[in-house]
Amino acid sequence: MTGAVKHRHDNATALELAAIGLALITILSVWKLKQFKYKLLNETGGAMFYGMLMGLTVRYLSPAQGEHGDDVATMCSCGGLNSTPHILTVNITSHFHSYRHTAKVSQRYPPVSIHHTENFDPEVLFNLFLPPIIFHGAYTLNQKRFIENLGSILSFAFLGTIISCMTIGACVYGFTRLMVLLGQAADGDFFLTDCLMFGAIISATDPVSVLGLLSDLRVDVDLHTLLFGESVLNDAVAIVLTHEQSRSSRRVNRWQDGEQGDGAGRQLTQVHIHGKAISAITTYSQMGAGHSFNPPAFFLSVGHFLGVLAGSFLLGFIVTVITALLTKFTRLCENPLLETSVFFLLSWSSFLSAEAVGLSGIVAVLFCGLSQARYTIHNLSSVGRTRTKQLFEVFNFLGEIFIFGYMGYILLTFPHHVFKAFFIFGAFLSIIISRACNIYPLSFLLNLGRTTKIPRNFQHFMMFAGLRGAVALNLAARDTSTEVKRTILTTTLLLVGFTIWVLGTTADPMLRCLDIRMGVDADENPEDLSFEVATGRPDTNRSLWHCLDYKYLKPLLTHCGPPLTDSLPQWCGVFSRLFGRVQVQEDEELCEIEPDDSTFIHLEKTEDQVESKRSDSGSEHQEDLLEGDLGLGTAAALPMEA
Amino acid sequence: MTGAVKHRHDNATALELAAIGLALITILSVWKLKQFKYKLLNETGGAMFYGMLMGLTVRYLSPAQGEHGDDVATMCSCGGLNSTPHILTVNITSHFHSYRHTAKVSQRYPPVSIHHTENFDPEVLFNLFLPPIIFHGAYTLNQKRFIENLGSILSFAFLGTIISCMTIGACVYGFTRLMVLLGQAADGDFFLTDCLMFGAIISATDPVSVLGLLSDLRVDVDLHTLLFGESVLNDAVAIVLTHEQSRSSRRVNRWQDGEQGDGAGRQLTQVHIHGKAISAITTYSQMGAGHSFNPPAFFLSVGHFLGVLAGSFLLGFIVTVITALLTKFTRLCENPLLETSVFFLLSWSSFLSAEAVGLSGIVAVLFCGLSQARYTIHNLSSVGRTRTKQLFEVFNFLGEIFIFGYMGYILLTFPHHVFKAFFIFGAFLSIIISRACNIYPLSFLLNLGRTTKIPRNFQHFMMFAGLRGAVALNLAARDTSTEVKRTILTTTLLLVGFTIWVLGTTADPMLRCLDIRMGVDADENPEDLSFEVATGRPDTNRSLWHCLDYKYLKPLLTHCGPPLTDSLPQWCGVFSRLFGRVQVQEDEELCEIEPDDSTFIHLEKTEDQVESKRSDSGSEHQEDLLEGDLGLGTAAALPMEA
Repeated sequence: MTGAVKHRHDNATALELAAIGLALITILSVWKLKQFKYKLLNETGGAMFYGMLMGLTVRYLSPAQGEHGDDVATMCSCGGLNSTPHILTVNITSHFHSYRHTAKVSQRYPPVSIHHTENFDPEVLFNLFLPPIIFHGAYTLNQKRFIENLGSILSFAFLGTIISCMTIGACVYGFTRLMVLLGQAADGDFFLTDCLMFGAIISATDPVSVLGLLSDLRVDVDLHTLLFGESVLNDAVAIVLTHEQSRSSRRVNRWQDGEQGDGAGRQLTQVHIHGKAISAITTYSQMGAGHSFNPPAFFLSVGHFLGVLAGSFLLGFIVTVITALLTKFTRLCENPLLETSVFFLLSWSSFLSAEAVGLSGIVAVLFCGLSQARYTIHNLSSVGRTRTKQLFEVFNFLGEIFIFGYMGYILLTFPHHVFKAFFIFGAFLSIIISRACNIYPLSFLLNLGRTTKIPRNFQHFMMFAGLRGAVALNLAARDTSTEVKRTILTTTLLLVGFTIWVLGTTADPMLRCLDIRMGVDADENPEDLSFEVATGRPDTNRSLWHCLDYKYLKPLLTHCGPPLTDSLPQWCGVFSRLFGRVQVQEDEELCEIEPDDSTFIHLEKTEDQVESKRSDSGSEHQEDLLEGDLGLGTAAALPMEA
Repeated sequence: MTGAVKHRHDNATALELAAIGLALITILSVWKLKQFKYKLLNETGGAMFYGMLMGLTVRYLSPAQGEHGDDVATMCSCGGLNSTPHILTVNITSHFHSYRHTAKVSQRYPPVSIHHTENFDPEVLFNLFLPPIIFHGAYTLNQKRFIENLGSILSFAFLGTIISCMTIGACVYGFTRLMVLLGQAADGDFFLTDCLMFGAIISATDPVSVLGLLSDLRVDVDLHTLLFGESVLNDAVAIVLTHEQSRSSRRVNRWQDGEQGDGAGRQLTQVHIHGKAISAITTYSQMGAGHSFNPPAFFLSVGHFLGVLAGSFLLGFIVTVITALLTKFTRLCENPLLETSVFFLLSWSSFLSAEAVGLSGIVAVLFCGLSQARYTIHNLSSVGRTRTKQLFEVFNFLGEIFIFGYMGYILLTFPHHVFKAFFIFGAFLSIIISRACNIYPLSFLLNLGRTTKIPRNFQHFMMFAGLRGAVALNLAARDTSTEVKRTILTTTLLLVGFTIWVLGTTADPMLRCLDIRMGVDADENPEDLSFEVATGRPDTNRSLWHCLDYKYLKPLLTHCGPPLTDSLPQWCGVFSRLFGRVQVQEDEELCEIEPDDSTFIHLEKTEDQVESKRSDSGSEHQEDLLEGDLGLGTAAALPMEA
């Protein structure tokens, strides 16, 4: 027993060391490449490349090949990726002990069989690094733009992803039928639900890689907001569509592993009914709608989808309310370390709480980040603001590298890849078709309502920038019990690699070709004023939201906005006095000047002062633009104050 | 298989949530207490208290008690702490599945037995949080004071810990003999090596709790340096004394677990010989010196001890050299995020590399922190300096809370405590005696050589401030296979709890009683000048060190100091031109002004500027003192420059 612990410890140390080495090499080489003005490869691509290199080394240069290579791969693969429960390896470093357990061996040395789950579990990686990445993305998002473009973002994320999922599902199902016709697959290998599941896994664009791409190239702010907003929210959609499915099917697999191997597709779907929490596609497939459209099942799954989404949203917001009230009514801001720690822990807990109660952690942490940046940030001290942002920045940066490095590694070391050329070809074709079916029709429809249209070149780039990444892999890797699932995993990995390298590296020339501005600061936009006024339906929707936000939430959660005693009706007197302004801080001035969402701009400026040593060429120009933005924020909010 | 992963994931989520909740409650309540000027309870004590509360809740309020309570405890205990390999629990949250595996059950459902190692492994916690804690302590240490007091610190840490270990070993052995006489234990239960092992585990004072205490009370700088330096270095001693022992004994236990239960002491020590790496006490015990003194064994163990120590020291220094050269010869400092990431990853890797090659990670990270603060910090940008420090600060703060919370938790939930009243009483008595045998005679001897004596009241406080903590628990928890080991674990936990609460909370009145200054800033000391000149043998030792440091290492690793072409002989021309000053930075000025170790003071000042909003009453006064310190640093280094 204790020997197992020791070995696991050795494993963990070696893996951690390897991960750190990989991260260092990635950081240094990508940075070096960027110094030579070679902007094509970004950190995500680099990390994936080095991960593959490491995988290749481990796979082919390890002393004993064959069975042994398998072992090494199995060891570093996750439980979820692990479809051969009887192969296990104990030590990666100097000496390899591999045990291929026959029933006889297990009986003779029962304690040894417990080594099995020593494998590295990628969920730990995702649990550790996905929340800060998403949180950082949401926290540093230009909120004004996000809210202005919210309608379009939601359309692309929700409608678009569902269109995409359906299109991919249909296309791939067509291809699988073709495979059956051509004798490449047996009838019954691929069900419609399998294809839809693949569609749900692969249709979501990845916020991590999209963010990496966008922040490197610094494209137009509206395009940035549209793409990032879409990628974050459609992840949520994908997760909700697939999440519980894998959960319940796993619960079933556990009991079937011992008795039967692959191809238990039909039985699996039949037993799904026992799963506690059920997801959209599962709900649908449970109603026996594996092959044909079934309206009740469809509406039930939509209902489930909306329920999980709303629950996650609410949870993220509740965490923000707690953080905001805590930082508002205590004097935590006097100690930036405590402030940062509390903020950090609470934000992280939004992800974990959501996962614990069966909701989507990513959606929760996304809304938590958005609302923290809108409310809680006003209660933090200026040092606290800088610290929280920097802390998440480091986590975000390292997390991206670790996740993509791991993806590259697993691509070459997962021992049970199933390459089905037709399926892969169909998948490649279908993601292009589905992206086109998503972007162009939706843009056309949205442009009907928008006064500032989404230009053609933006549409082309949005079509182009459909990078897939960590979340897709995470979803695909959750269940690899059957051959179909393994086919899906292999295809997903290939698609992720393709989109990240090919699309990622050609994004720069593509942008030039499409004549889209680059090198734009996140907070700058010369057409700001016109856009602000020109957005679709600004008065009905925004004023309602603004009323709630400015008159109730801001005064309740921060020291900004009008006093609650004014906004709330008379009979809420006690409540409004209790939650109204208790202490007047120096932040007061900040709130008065910038009642909108420019807090981060203020923060950026503080940082700029600190970083004044850096020879950033256009920094003065940038400051001017920021001032302009600030002025606009005030101007926009003035009518509310009157 | 996949079911197991899912459950493990659920477990991990629940545990992480619980840990975050515990940390939040600790932070908020301790901070609230401090607001009421109640300084007695610090974060470590608070975290341990809440951890115990959580342990109590889990143990007694869980739906089913008895066997079930055991299960819960086992699940959250580590593999090392886990002495009942056949009990396992799968889920902590809503529904408990507990399987008590008989051989029959395991045969029927072989895959289920792999659930066993789902337990939370405290080594992960220690691996994750100990390095930043130690690194932060070393990185922010007042280096000048550390070097000035180095002789005394080394004496206390090395000689003192060995004295302590011997004294405790002897005392406790005496008590165990008494237990045998009184019929409380069988002859052969406790060997001398067991008692020495206990001595090694418990004799080291804990840097985490000592730092928590000292930084809260802000005692005199010399006292701070002596106590912290001692606590960090004696950990290293304790780890080296015990580390490999547990490693080799574990390797043996693995094969014995199945066949026999407790009391296999004699057989275990006999099989130790097969262990690859062997430690001081093991080396000694292997030579058959279990009962009587054996000079060859003694010298071999001393040699082994020194070898591990030197190796770890060297490894930490090599990491620093890599970091320093990397930051010196590249323009990483233009991007503070990359700079911070590289610095952070490399510093962490010092711990992992040392552990991977069988050295002491803590010693490596300690020396890495010390040397990074001396050299690499000169190559970082000012933003990078602030960031690295803040990053480690957050990790340090949260790590302390998590580690001590876990200790409290395990104290009440570890299901196999062995309470031996005599042994515990003997241990309590022996740590007091050993601390007295350590501090007073050594202080007396050191005072013979020191011109600035260690005052009586300092000695009393040093005697008093022997807080034990995380490292002792870590060492004790590594092996709990026999009843003796479990007795040691239980006693260690009680001693840790006692020293942290009783000594920790009475430190404040004790300091007042002993008339020792408190609320001193870490960089302040009015008697600085006198102390500087008055230290024991300043000219022979310091000048040698200074010569190496100032003339060779500084110019090689940073942009400070005299050019290498001047320091190195003629024939090293190529080398000196290669590693000499390549680029002249603005830091140049900093180096010229402060050639000594005042970089952190500069950093603190930068931070002070950022934090200028904070109403720190004595900040101006403090700045003046810092200036004084700066001036002194220059004065001291002037003769070197001439």
